Amino acid sequence: MKILVINAAFKEKQKDMIKTTADKVGAEVHFLVSEKDITDDLKDADVVYGFGVNIAKTSKNLKWLCVPSAGVDFMLKPDSFANEDCLFSNSSGAYGVTIAEHIIAVSLMMMRNLTDFYAASLDGIWSTPKPQKSLKDCNITVLGTGDIGTCFARRAKAFEPKVITGVCRSGKCDDPSYDRVLKVSELDSILPTTELLVMSLPSTVETTNILSRERIALMPDGAYIVNVGRGSAIDEDALADSLDSGKLAGAALDVFKTEPLPENSRLWKTKNLLITPHVAGNLTVEYTMNRNVEMFCEDLLNFAEGKTLKYLVDRKKGY
Amino acid sequence: MKILVINAAFKEKQKDMIKTTADKVGAEVHFLVSEKDITDDLKDADVVYGFGVNIAKTSKNLKWLCVPSAGVDFMLKPDSFANEDCLFSNSSGAYGVTIAEHIIAVSLMMMRNLTDFYAASLDGIWSTPKPQKSLKDCNITVLGTGDIGTCFARRAKAFEPKVITGVCRSGKCDDPSYDRVLKVSELDSILPTTELLVMSLPSTVETTNILSRERIALMPDGAYIVNVGRGSAIDEDALADSLDSGKLAGAALDVFKTEPLPENSRLWKTKNLLITPHVAGNLTVEYTMNRNVEMFCEDLLNFAEGKTLKYLVDRKKGY
Repeated sequence: MKILVINAAFKEKQKDMIKTTADKVGAEVHFLVSEKDITDDLKDADVVYGFGVNIAKTSKNLKWLCVPSAGVDFMLKPDSFANEDCLFSNSSGAYGVTIAEHIIAVSLMMMRNLTDFYAASLDGIWSTPKPQKSLKDCNITVLGTGDIGTCFARRAKAFEPKVITGVCRSGKCDDPSYDRVLKVSELDSILPTTELLVMSLPSTVETTNILSRERIALMPDGAYIVNVGRGSAIDEDALADSLDSGKLAGAALDVFKTEPLPENSRLWKTKNLLITPHVAGNLTVEYTMNRNVEMFCEDLLNFAEGKTLKYLVDRKKGY
Repeated sequence: MKILVINAAFKEKQKDMIKTTADKVGAEVHFLVSEKDITDDLKDADVVYGFGVNIAKTSKNLKWLCVPSAGVDFMLKPDSFANEDCLFSNSSGAYGVTIAEHIIAVSLMMMRNLTDFYAASLDGIWSTPKPQKSLKDCNITVLGTGDIGTCFARRAKAFEPKVITGVCRSGKCDDPSYDRVLKVSELDSILPTTELLVMSLPSTVETTNILSRERIALMPDGAYIVNVGRGSAIDEDALADSLDSGKLAGAALDVFKTEPLPENSRLWKTKNLLITPHVAGNLTVEYTMNRNVEMFCEDLLNFAEGKTLKYLVDRKKGY
């Protein structure tokens, strides 16, 4: 078995974890920094762990592609895989911890006006106090109760919010951090009381523009929105209108319909919009990187034994 | 009994809470926006709830001053009270929730490089990813285990840090959020492993420059410091040196030796220093304001019945 690991972030520790597992299953493993480094003698690899977009599209010998991201929308177009039986797994479950920290951070930055205080400090200005809001007694809705939403809910719980409502397709999630869990079809019923809406959804047909102009209008004045899933989930123009008009108190977007966000996008100048360049989840946090590798190694054992992969993508659902 | 309530932030809800309690004890209550509004007929007040610095200094009739802040250093100079038997209480216990949110927010802003991402976004720049650190597996030391430090520790616990060490005079604090609690005399022994140092100390002789140049030098490279107590606790020049040299990865100061921070202070230009203008704890958060008033009302009942006040300041300790 020939494995290609394509990842510039991995250090000796992560490489050793992979080598040890590869040895166990008698596989040879090659570490590459970029897909461009795939030489002719590596094109017949059986397994790729990395963003092997081109090799998946061209190699009929590829039997398993594991991407190190949670999002998989970029691999769900037709013709993404030359081998139609190629297994496809992702790393959903590795990013919850780091993205949850991002959500807490940007929520508090907005609610506590830290963005304004910080911006003023860059100009050497000692600002006067401004009104602040709190996660304490806040009505929070988490749209998308997967690993990311739930890691956030667990942390948010410690801030003593009034209620944390989870919203997902099935309306079911066992995590005790949620005070209740509703189906997506019930979303409209809770938006009018939602003070902080956290969105961590995959990009699918069903989630496209799920936060529409009509739904934004259902939210109360002064509400906050955080999106760390995919930019496709929000009607960006409607969001910008609601922020510029002062209806919404703030929004923090880490993902956008077009990334990088174009220079001429109105979002750069939208009032109370906190823009981060898709950095909520990445591999620079040691824990995230280790967890990512652990998950791949777990499935490498499954793969070698002919068992079903644990982190297989459901291509029909799109995540 | 004549009570003056001096506070510009209070709304009808808070005034009603106070009126109801004043009625119970047969007291008359006057609401003022500023100490300057004290007319001649109010100068014989028995009780002041507010920053009654001048009336305390001049009125021999004042029997109880309750300040709405946690810090009391500004009232501990000799001659602060014309009536040397005047009772003196504070509102320590009201600010833990809001200041804890500030500490979490600024810690994550620094550790996740959100300051840089945000600053770039103000110029319309989509930054490239930067290394990020996490509260997960972090070694946290909380210097000052009062209401503020402990509210922070409770929230920090949900982020799954490696260890939370509390440090206080007595070395004793029962809150289960701390993995261990040490005496201030043991501080030097844990600084070398402290990755995030959170300081929430009152200003006293003992806490002045407690974070000295020598102690900063004991901290590991890449450590972070947050101070929300009083600026007197840190050798500001030594801190700036450690930040500018890149030894410390970041510091977030909400309090300073001189406030407002002077225009020509080197701190404005110090590398990786996040400056906020003493806004970690204020009365704009509804919960904080209500809790503040509840505590005063609780002690108003005690005062009327001749009982010991619950929130009495220990003038010798200085908090």
